[in-house]
Amino acid sequence: MPDIAFSAVDRIMRKAGAERVSEDGVEALRDVIETLALEISREAIALAKHAGRKTVNAEDVKLASRKLLALTKLGI
Amino acid sequence: MPDIAFSAVDRIMRKAGAERVSEDGVEALRDVIETLALEISREAIALAKHAGRKTVNAEDVKLASRKLLALTKLGI
Repeated sequence: MPDIAFSAVDRIMRKAGAERVSEDGVEALRDVIETLALEISREAIALAKHAGRKTVNAEDVKLASRKLLALTKLGI
Repeated sequence: MPDIAFSAVDRIMRKAGAERVSEDGVEALRDVIETLALEISREAIALAKHAGRKTVNAEDVKLASRKLLALTKLGI
C-alpha cells in the first residue's frame, strides 16, 4: 500500500519538464522514492539511537541520506 | 512549495520503526526525496527522448534510478 500520493509524484515529474507520463511511470517513481525513504529512515533511526536519542531529527536524516546515497553530488 | 504530504513522510518513518520523529526530521526527509524524484525525473525524460518517445514510462524511470543512485544495492 503506497504512502505517497500518485498526484504528488505526477506533479514532480511535470515540474521536471515531462510533457506526458504513463501511469506506470508515475507508479515506478513512487516505488523508488518510497523505498529510498524507508532505507534513509532506518539509517536515521540507528543514528538517533547511536546519539542516545529517541527522537529522530533533521541531522539524523541528512547524515543518513549522505551516507546511503552520496547526495552531496546533488547539492544536498 | 513541497509536493509530497508531510503525513505521508511521517507514516513512512514510522513504518521504518521510528517511535518519535521531530517535525524538522520529517521535513528534511521530504526535501531529500523530492530532490531525488526531480533528478530521476529529469534523467527519465532524457531517456524517453533518446528512445524517440514523448511519454515517460516505467522503464525510463527504472533505468534513470539505477543510473543515478546505483539502486541495485537496495534491491530495486
